[in-house]
Amino acid sequence: MNSLNVGLVGSGFMGRAHAQAFRAVGGLYDLPLTPVLDLLSERDEATAAQAARALGFQRHTGDWRALVADPAVDVVAITTPNRLHAPIALAAIEAGKHVYCEKPLATTLADARAMAAAADARGVVTLVGFNYLKNPMIALAREIVESGEIGAITGFRGIHAEDFMADPAHPFTWRCEADNAGGALADIGSHILSLARHLVGDVTAVSGHLHTVHDRRPVAPGSAETRAVAVDDQAHALLEFANGATGTVTASWIAQGRKMQLAFELVGTKGSIAFTQERFNELKLYTTGGPRGRQGFRTIEAGPEHGDYAAFCPAPGHQIGFGDLKTIEVKGLVEAIGAHKAGRKAAAYPDFRDACAIEQIAEAIHVSARERRWIAVDSV
Amino acid sequence: MNSLNVGLVGSGFMGRAHAQAFRAVGGLYDLPLTPVLDLLSERDEATAAQAARALGFQRHTGDWRALVADPAVDVVAITTPNRLHAPIALAAIEAGKHVYCEKPLATTLADARAMAAAADARGVVTLVGFNYLKNPMIALAREIVESGEIGAITGFRGIHAEDFMADPAHPFTWRCEADNAGGALADIGSHILSLARHLVGDVTAVSGHLHTVHDRRPVAPGSAETRAVAVDDQAHALLEFANGATGTVTASWIAQGRKMQLAFELVGTKGSIAFTQERFNELKLYTTGGPRGRQGFRTIEAGPEHGDYAAFCPAPGHQIGFGDLKTIEVKGLVEAIGAHKAGRKAAAYPDFRDACAIEQIAEAIHVSARERRWIAVDSV
Amino acid sequence: MNSLNVGLVGSGFMGRAHAQAFRAVGGLYDLPLTPVLDLLSERDEATAAQAARALGFQRHTGDWRALVADPAVDVVAITTPNRLHAPIALAAIEAGKHVYCEKPLATTLADARAMAAAADARGVVTLVGFNYLKNPMIALAREIVESGEIGAITGFRGIHAEDFMADPAHPFTWRCEADNAGGALADIGSHILSLARHLVGDVTAVSGHLHTVHDRRPVAPGSAETRAVAVDDQAHALLEFANGATGTVTASWIAQGRKMQLAFELVGTKGSIAFTQERFNELKLYTTGGPRGRQGFRTIEAGPEHGDYAAFCPAPGHQIGFGDLKTIEVKGLVEAIGAHKAGRKAAAYPDFRDACAIEQIAEAIHVSARERRWIAVDSV
Amino acid sequence: MNSLNVGLVGSGFMGRAHAQAFRAVGGLYDLPLTPVLDLLSERDEATAAQAARALGFQRHTGDWRALVADPAVDVVAITTPNRLHAPIALAAIEAGKHVYCEKPLATTLADARAMAAAADARGVVTLVGFNYLKNPMIALAREIVESGEIGAITGFRGIHAEDFMADPAHPFTWRCEADNAGGALADIGSHILSLARHLVGDVTAVSGHLHTVHDRRPVAPGSAETRAVAVDDQAHALLEFANGATGTVTASWIAQGRKMQLAFELVGTKGSIAFTQERFNELKLYTTGGPRGRQGFRTIEAGPEHGDYAAFCPAPGHQIGFGDLKTIEVKGLVEAIGAHKAGRKAAAYPDFRDACAIEQIAEAIHVSARERRWIAVDSV
Repeated sequence: MNSLNVGLVGSGFMGRAHAQAFRAVGGLYDLPLTPVLDLLSERDEATAAQAARALGFQRHTGDWRALVADPAVDVVAITTPNRLHAPIALAAIEAGKHVYCEKPLATTLADARAMAAAADARGVVTLVGFNYLKNPMIALAREIVESGEIGAITGFRGIHAEDFMADPAHPFTWRCEADNAGGALADIGSHILSLARHLVGDVTAVSGHLHTVHDRRPVAPGSAETRAVAVDDQAHALLEFANGATGTVTASWIAQGRKMQLAFELVGTKGSIAFTQERFNELKLYTTGGPRGRQGFRTIEAGPEHGDYAAFCPAPGHQIGFGDLKTIEVKGLVEAIGAHKAGRKAAAYPDFRDACAIEQIAEAIHVSARERRWIAVDSV
Repeated sequence: MNSLNVGLVGSGFMGRAHAQAFRAVGGLYDLPLTPVLDLLSERDEATAAQAARALGFQRHTGDWRALVADPAVDVVAITTPNRLHAPIALAAIEAGKHVYCEKPLATTLADARAMAAAADARGVVTLVGFNYLKNPMIALAREIVESGEIGAITGFRGIHAEDFMADPAHPFTWRCEADNAGGALADIGSHILSLARHLVGDVTAVSGHLHTVHDRRPVAPGSAETRAVAVDDQAHALLEFANGATGTVTASWIAQGRKMQLAFELVGTKGSIAFTQERFNELKLYTTGGPRGRQGFRTIEAGPEHGDYAAFCPAPGHQIGFGDLKTIEVKGLVEAIGAHKAGRKAAAYPDFRDACAIEQIAEAIHVSARERRWIAVDSV
Repeated sequence: MNSLNVGLVGSGFMGRAHAQAFRAVGGLYDLPLTPVLDLLSERDEATAAQAARALGFQRHTGDWRALVADPAVDVVAITTPNRLHAPIALAAIEAGKHVYCEKPLATTLADARAMAAAADARGVVTLVGFNYLKNPMIALAREIVESGEIGAITGFRGIHAEDFMADPAHPFTWRCEADNAGGALADIGSHILSLARHLVGDVTAVSGHLHTVHDRRPVAPGSAETRAVAVDDQAHALLEFANGATGTVTASWIAQGRKMQLAFELVGTKGSIAFTQERFNELKLYTTGGPRGRQGFRTIEAGPEHGDYAAFCPAPGHQIGFGDLKTIEVKGLVEAIGAHKAGRKAAAYPDFRDACAIEQIAEAIHVSARERRWIAVDSV
Repeated sequence: MNSLNVGLVGSGFMGRAHAQAFRAVGGLYDLPLTPVLDLLSERDEATAAQAARALGFQRHTGDWRALVADPAVDVVAITTPNRLHAPIALAAIEAGKHVYCEKPLATTLADARAMAAAADARGVVTLVGFNYLKNPMIALAREIVESGEIGAITGFRGIHAEDFMADPAHPFTWRCEADNAGGALADIGSHILSLARHLVGDVTAVSGHLHTVHDRRPVAPGSAETRAVAVDDQAHALLEFANGATGTVTASWIAQGRKMQLAFELVGTKGSIAFTQERFNELKLYTTGGPRGRQGFRTIEAGPEHGDYAAFCPAPGHQIGFGDLKTIEVKGLVEAIGAHKAGRKAAAYPDFRDACAIEQIAEAIHVSARERRWIAVDSV
């Protein structure tokens, strides 16, 4: 039977998103395997039972180790707090499961590398949830870059800014601790780094700066007691790319008014691209040439000729949503596992190796900020 | 058992959208009934079998009459060409089924009224697929209007423009025939009329104009043989509303470059709203008052405080997609049927009566255009 | 000597704008005549003296008849309240002066026609201040239309909305009286009608609607005494053009939040244009053709290749302002007078005849609204 | 007599802009002095004669030394290539003239400092042409920042990008030479640095990066012979401000499609501002607070309540142009000279000292880029 039994660890925002994507994907694509919402684990039995019911899973458990060990489970989807990614993924890999893990892959680069090495050694399929890479408009951007339509890439200016930590009264959370890969750069900056790498290629050197604006936060909402924040509220870096392009990147979770400003401007010798996730069904494209007096950035609306859009709608301009990005992501996972089961060499994208490369850039920025000097990315 | 067996008639763009919505809704909402993709009908057995497999239905049939008569089916979803809406819906109602029908409800106002009357008489739940009304930003617009935040509404300027028929080489289709409720006004103009009614209220009188720009089209792609087009390519109307507001509405399927320009500007005595489906996760709001020199339209990004957004995402700015609008629509249907089963008076929105009211405005515009005079909407 | 002596009647907003334009134009263009700010008239000597000093005029008078009769004056610029346009212009023409008059040309179509006839008979140069037609981006739009780049024009959807009368506490002014060519349609709607005619051509028939939302206004700021308003706050019309295009137009001075929404969407068989005066250094252009998946409206920024832009700046994107539009307008006037003086047949654009044609459309809309029926424009 | 005799050196783009501003300013403001276009110098007599005629100057000379020495000249306006700024300004100061100099003030920081010191010693009024600071929307931004409306400023992200050097076939010019203060950073980056300083305050440390993308250019249009480019095509820097804010800045003259992307995002603890010179009559403002579900960036259109807008137009939304920014700049100069003549202490803004501070930041970025380390701005 061609089913793919999903074991989901965690049922928060991302857990729900995974569940919906596995639920939706079969009706949209002709897949080699049919995902089955099989087993859900949460921190305890009661929570797990309730989440399984809400999300439509057949079974539940209060122990992720049981899930990982369950022979019926084909793929383990990890949506827990960051520090659990490594132990769960390593256990799953050891058990021969394919692994679909939320970003950041791990809280240290060493852990991430160990995870990638284990996956390679065991030969399982892995995927990390950088879902914004799955946007049909990003597929279009990459197609434009790769085809040479805008020439050689010379500049990249990226940002991921939100404001969910902008209020100094926002309480201290695990994201504020030193060793949980929180901080604006690790938490959301990784998205813009993943896009930079996806579109421009490897980053070779960085000069970074981290900035903790609200250096103490209440231990609980409304509490007078505060705790020192160990991570950055905003981060900036200069980037040098392997292909000679240069640029900057900013991450901030205190950017008042910004909800999802994952945005970039990409400049090539023959054109430019501008994009923001705030209007992610659009891409702005400028190309040289054409009649005098008629040039300008054009606003391309997502349509069936772009990336995976056609799976969702045969007509342009109808727009896909955040959840659909996750569905496209899951499609790639199911196809890769299907190929793997069929005995073919198969990788999903971005896999654990890719995620390591992204985390390595972030780590280099951290080191650079601490040491106030340029850091070669391959030196960390 | 609390399942809701869905019988879907048709498996094109809208059929797939219905299927996905029924598939998704259970994981997002706590519903009284769990939709089951039970039975799908298509024009013949083979097509039905393939579509059922692709969309995940348990059973299939080549005969919609069998579907309508099937005792296991609870709700009939109709996504066929327009002229079949009436016979299928009437048969389904007669069989005591709840009915979820795509817009336009029928190809004649008389048929639409007969359908609404039959549904009333039989006491079944009905819903018509004006999915754009389900947008959280439209929920916000309505909340703003109803709360009086922008005062009394005085003006409405709406449009639904696309370009899928803009190419004169686009072949003749059933939408070009006189008696299939095609034409720009009936086919897409009904969306902007539904929004006008939703936000401003009843339209009392219209002065309309219909315009067939491409009056002959090839009988098939590339054919030299052409056939006379019986419907409008673009339509315009002046509107008088019951509450004293006035405005205009335009529908066009030949508006080059427009993919989904379902847009309006709504003016009140204390503020204004502007919206376009092209960026449907945004609403622009202007209100009077506030400090001098700081006024302006603000761009509100969809977030969990707006309409049904929170069912899809706990964080603002992530954006929902077209398919999600359909899911919200289906949620209302399932809730209404659940209430109905529980013996409570229940209506979904917009139901067949609402759809009749929308079609009545379109019909008045047609009469007005033909007779070149103002027409009272309640006279048709 | 090659000077052009300017006599300016009125020194309000538009009077100042005229003065600045005459002052600026000589430094920007190589003109046949050098404008001299010679004589300014205002309602009384004291006001005239102060205005002449402020605006840099050499002489002043408290009597416009003296200005018109002054042999040194070559061109009379009229920026008075509307009802004085006709008597001043007729007197100036009779005195053989060239006339530059603000819009609307007159408060009745009959007056406007008499003015145009007088100018024709006397052979003087006339110009009416529809300055928005002078925008380099409008020059571009017209060039695109005339070249056939967007095919045959099929649709026009225009608006001029502002909010300066939106507050019901705004006091009654001469613009609220019946016989002063006030009202949203005459006062600002004439701008969008001038653009419709400029870009699409003659309007042949209209169905109009006028709407007085605030039908009484205080006689003075804060006064409890009110006076009945005789004119429209907002107006809508359906338009049929001579070339077969159809469309709508709206005028409103109660559109909360709108400061200068003079905007249109122009649809052709091979492309579309969208424009708003709110960002009047931009034009949005869509054309069919080009590679699949790369189409979209492009935002063209004003540059030296567009209309008169190069007179102001050799580099693109620097933007011209409202005052510069007036300067371009004056350039055309000076050139036409220069040609006239050189014995060549010369007309500025739009002249009194053009302004009559614009007023005729507005008059047809008024008649249509009153009689609630379609009106042929050439019947009024 | 209250005239201010202007001596203009140079008659290119900026020379014309100065002339127009001096010509326009008297009709818009009530000034203590009336500017007179007195004497123009160009590289030779013939050029000077022609330019004087075109721009409306009374006299001309082929020698700037004669202009500087002319006793009738009150203020010397310098719009020559950059390397002449210092000698002309120093000579003018020595002759006791007030000096209005285009940016960059000088080609070396040492020269700039010498110029500022000379002006201080001689007590003349100076002004440097950072005209974008004069925008009413920038005045609004500063007012918002200073009033605390958006709290403490924490982040700044700025760019000045154009594309006039993007084509590798663009020939080598003096801007490509090492010692002429060309290069993207010095030439246009100084604008965004001036805005950063104007809105956020002093920059204390930088990490910079310069990048010459097109390192050889043809010696003339179409020539096969090329010459090595000594300056940057694009520059990036991390910034630390004295008030604790951090940020990035980018300058590029090879940003395909960008004509005037002088843009920034300014984040405070209670709100944010976004601006681009591409739409410089708008400012986007977000402030915390206000009703739930109604928050968003508002687009404020320039109006008479903002900065100097009212001098140009009494109604909002009509928009000022690039030339008007120059006129506002000149207004400040004339007022300062008027105050100086009246014996009051007077400074225009930004004066030579301000310009030194801006150049010092740019110089620090240059040093940082060369030495690949953080540089304290006060160390250069």
